[in-house]
Amino acid sequence: MKFKAMYSFLEQDLNIVERELEKTIQSTDPLLSDAGLHLLQAGGKRIRPVFVLLSAMFGKYDINTIKKVAVALELIHMASLVHDDVIDDAEIRRGRETIKAKWDNLIAMYTGDYLFARSLQLITEIENPLAHQILSKTIVEVCLGEIEQIKDKFHYEQTYKTYLKRIKRKTALLIAASCQVGAVCAEVPDEWHKKLYWFGYYVGLSFQIVDDILDFTSTEKELGKPVGSDLLQGNITLPVLFAMKDPAIKQRIIQINENTTPEEIKPVIDDIKNSGAIEHSFEISNRYLMKSLQFIDQLPKCKARTALMKIAKYIGKRKF
Amino acid sequence: MKFKAMYSFLEQDLNIVERELEKTIQSTDPLLSDAGLHLLQAGGKRIRPVFVLLSAMFGKYDINTIKKVAVALELIHMASLVHDDVIDDAEIRRGRETIKAKWDNLIAMYTGDYLFARSLQLITEIENPLAHQILSKTIVEVCLGEIEQIKDKFHYEQTYKTYLKRIKRKTALLIAASCQVGAVCAEVPDEWHKKLYWFGYYVGLSFQIVDDILDFTSTEKELGKPVGSDLLQGNITLPVLFAMKDPAIKQRIIQINENTTPEEIKPVIDDIKNSGAIEHSFEISNRYLMKSLQFIDQLPKCKARTALMKIAKYIGKRKF
Repeated sequence: MKFKAMYSFLEQDLNIVERELEKTIQSTDPLLSDAGLHLLQAGGKRIRPVFVLLSAMFGKYDINTIKKVAVALELIHMASLVHDDVIDDAEIRRGRETIKAKWDNLIAMYTGDYLFARSLQLITEIENPLAHQILSKTIVEVCLGEIEQIKDKFHYEQTYKTYLKRIKRKTALLIAASCQVGAVCAEVPDEWHKKLYWFGYYVGLSFQIVDDILDFTSTEKELGKPVGSDLLQGNITLPVLFAMKDPAIKQRIIQINENTTPEEIKPVIDDIKNSGAIEHSFEISNRYLMKSLQFIDQLPKCKARTALMKIAKYIGKRKF
Repeated sequence: MKFKAMYSFLEQDLNIVERELEKTIQSTDPLLSDAGLHLLQAGGKRIRPVFVLLSAMFGKYDINTIKKVAVALELIHMASLVHDDVIDDAEIRRGRETIKAKWDNLIAMYTGDYLFARSLQLITEIENPLAHQILSKTIVEVCLGEIEQIKDKFHYEQTYKTYLKRIKRKTALLIAASCQVGAVCAEVPDEWHKKLYWFGYYVGLSFQIVDDILDFTSTEKELGKPVGSDLLQGNITLPVLFAMKDPAIKQRIIQINENTTPEEIKPVIDDIKNSGAIEHSFEISNRYLMKSLQFIDQLPKCKARTALMKIAKYIGKRKF
């Protein structure tokens, strides 16, 4: 089953969200508009908007209100990607040049700031203090996660706990917030939006672990960037941590530094793939997926719930 | 009369704001806490908090609420300075190493993001939709201003209008917002907080023009950075625009580029100082100052009004 088929009933509303994204990104400054459009056209799964809309369906769903929340969440995500690419010195994302590659680091810094600011502006149109508080707290945590990612680069003495804390901040919290804020803005009762938060949180962990696996197991074409990019950029992900349990592989991994070339990294990628680390990482991802389903299970049956369950399962198994 | 003497009755409350700033900047991440503290210790006039508190005095003044607004505005300002230093490749600000110099550009990018996020978090504690809307709109404009500043660097065919638009976004809007949001959060009536906005707006223009003048007329010790830094960084300010009306001076100015040294720029600074451009710039600053006083004049007499008037006049005449 294709990803989009799981929520085909949202198609029209997601188109509305997409138009709103385009509108929001337009700026009086042509450079910013270009940069924003360049990002939008690179596509992406729009997972955060999907979660926002589906969560809102547990309450008073109104596309004209909820589209703003969906766009705001996607913009925060896009802003963090733009700043991430500066940190990672990344040239390519989703098969397209990054902002920092097409323009430069300074433009990328301010494009990120601008997207972020526009998302805030949109959020303030929704008069819901709880939604504002959840989001601002999430943004602080996302920033902390980014700083940790810088500090942890090429730092091989990491634990599973360090990794988990990082992906929590990097991915899980924003997906959890997407679910919760979507629900809160649709006046979903407290008890339910908290469950949606935890559903999103565990789906987010699972999603990021699979993402980190795919960095090794996918092809360059599927990834839209070179295989092993994370490792080359010094980001120590779960498959790497597991593979390093073998002292011989660890010895080769810790040689990798800022000057390692994509060619030099190829045999190490094979080592990691053959070490059992991929399978082990999938198991962990699956464990979080099961946890997420426990929370969604406690919510009333409806097509939104069915769609969230399908998406969660898809995320845990996706191949790219 | 010294700056602080104009609002000595605020001393205790400004200390509360300073403690709140220190508290807010603390992070679970030691690097971020260090970077934030480094910025705080560099000092600064805390003009935005002063304007927030004074404006709030026209309504229901409560330091426990209003301190959050004051801290949020100062944090937004600090965040923009940190990102500015990346753009300007600045090593020194307020006599101290910049974040980008002491650490690096990436740390500076995320320190800015973090300060910004913390300021938002504080703002969301104040349940006032109008305050949120004013602030988020201001932040968008500040971002647009920063992008313009990048694009206008070493671009000598600028007009007075371009300059004005830039300093409006760079400085005036945030000071205007400080005055208005301070008032809005103290339930100051519509008619008054709009006047406070315009007061802050014109004071902000005047303030920035004087700042741009001082870059030429002050000493390195007073500025806490080399004389002529703006010009060296390619920022074309009002004294430069006026001095370029003399074709001979213009000819020398337009030679300045990314590779010009501080030594090479010295004779050009003298040219600008002897051209009458400084006096002309002061006239313009003074014109905006007078406009600001027209707005404050329409507000009820009280010690906050007297203090705002004194501060405005001081800003127009300050020597550093």
